[in-house]
Amino acid sequence: MTILAKGHKLNGMKREPFFQKLAQAQERNQSLLCVGLDPDPAKLPAPFKRGGIQRVARFNQAIIKATADLVSAYKPNWAFYEALGLEGMRVLEKTLEAVPRHVPVIADAKRGDIGNTAKSYARAIFEVWGADAVTLSPYMGLDTLEPFLSYEDRAAYVLCLTSNPGAEDFELPGLLYLRVASALGQHDTRGNIGLVVGATQLGRIQEVRKAAPNLPFLIPGVGTQGGSARAAVQEAWGNRPGSVLVNVSRSVLYASSGNDFAEAARAAADDFRKELQGYIPRKKG
Amino acid sequence: MTILAKGHKLNGMKREPFFQKLAQAQERNQSLLCVGLDPDPAKLPAPFKRGGIQRVARFNQAIIKATADLVSAYKPNWAFYEALGLEGMRVLEKTLEAVPRHVPVIADAKRGDIGNTAKSYARAIFEVWGADAVTLSPYMGLDTLEPFLSYEDRAAYVLCLTSNPGAEDFELPGLLYLRVASALGQHDTRGNIGLVVGATQLGRIQEVRKAAPNLPFLIPGVGTQGGSARAAVQEAWGNRPGSVLVNVSRSVLYASSGNDFAEAARAAADDFRKELQGYIPRKKG
Repeated sequence: MTILAKGHKLNGMKREPFFQKLAQAQERNQSLLCVGLDPDPAKLPAPFKRGGIQRVARFNQAIIKATADLVSAYKPNWAFYEALGLEGMRVLEKTLEAVPRHVPVIADAKRGDIGNTAKSYARAIFEVWGADAVTLSPYMGLDTLEPFLSYEDRAAYVLCLTSNPGAEDFELPGLLYLRVASALGQHDTRGNIGLVVGATQLGRIQEVRKAAPNLPFLIPGVGTQGGSARAAVQEAWGNRPGSVLVNVSRSVLYASSGNDFAEAARAAADDFRKELQGYIPRKKG
Repeated sequence: MTILAKGHKLNGMKREPFFQKLAQAQERNQSLLCVGLDPDPAKLPAPFKRGGIQRVARFNQAIIKATADLVSAYKPNWAFYEALGLEGMRVLEKTLEAVPRHVPVIADAKRGDIGNTAKSYARAIFEVWGADAVTLSPYMGLDTLEPFLSYEDRAAYVLCLTSNPGAEDFELPGLLYLRVASALGQHDTRGNIGLVVGATQLGRIQEVRKAAPNLPFLIPGVGTQGGSARAAVQEAWGNRPGSVLVNVSRSVLYASSGNDFAEAARAAADDFRKELQGYIPRKKG
């Protein structure tokens, strides 16, 4: 491709497998914490109340600087950047550039489309933006995931059981979420599939773990959404490095609305980090 | 919002309801045809083989000019623009500007996320880009659709039964696709929900019609994907204006790889248009 956007320095480089990179980051920072970079201009703290759209990038840069040694991944949600128009995509670009290279980036984009189109989305997420992993929707079936999974050094976290009330509409009836978990566990020939399992789903996280013993989980819903961090870690714990990654967004980003926002974000991230570490099951024997 | 991208002139304007606009366009052009604007730089015809990325916009503009009086909607798939980086989003911008205002635009984005995030996606699709309708995934439940549906003059076509082989993985088992159709039929209090039903699903299109008698269908899979246009129209036909919209992408866009690409696209679009009109069931009595 000669027509990709310039400035994405990671294009085309072969990387170590995603879950290996994640496990190393978890070990280095002693952290299961992923911070969601979901900036809402209306919620930015005092120093970013006024000015052009690039203040959002400066906010993200400050959050990353304050927390990079306390997290094992960052997860920017594409929606928040797309809502800001073309300039929002430049905010995303600057945000990604600010993440240290040893900290993996998960593109929370929840894409899902048929083969030809999925290839284009995969190219966008992995080549244009250089993300290490992506979130995907399983609705349209396994063939729609394949164009992403064929990037063997990247990974896809596939929606399984989410933290919102609407999980009761289609995910839970007929135990669709367990069928998704089981099908993806069998489909994971390259070791680069994970599942999204919401922390509000007490008791069901362990069912998903049984249905997919080897898949790593990305767990949102802790913090503002009220899910239990203890259940998230203990029910989800698995037999592979990187088996649990817990995402927190607003509780870290907006820990303070004042000038001390960065210190407050750092303190909140460190509190979550320590709490999560405390829930890791001890090795037997 | 003061930080939206500039140049999107349709922001904030109240419109007529989407399905009314669609029905008017179908009546005006005597056409059930939607052309998918899914440009793949590697497949562009002779006049666009070389040059910068904006040649993709010029190709789209030529296709729109050649077909605007033969279609009832255009459906750009976001993936193809995202794959081209930031400049690709400028291609999308120029493409949308080239569509006559009386022809509705469906943003084929297949988004799906929880409330807070879905609001941002809805803002992106409807306010930043000014699309008339969007495609969404139902996996995460009805509450994830609401932020889009609250734009009462826009519409959402929700994935139901798709044309790819992977439909057998999760959509068909347990008749999930019929439960989705039925739930959305009941949820359509504003008259702005449609369903995506693939033309390759012979015999099942009429099941979806029974499960959701009042919802309009967007039907991809005709043309390159091999679905039956006859079945698409006859099984899907419903009791509301705009009840059937059939999408064709590659068979129109790449009807010729030569300098006559525009004439060939026009001829292909007109052939599809006439064929589809011929399948409309005659009114009884």
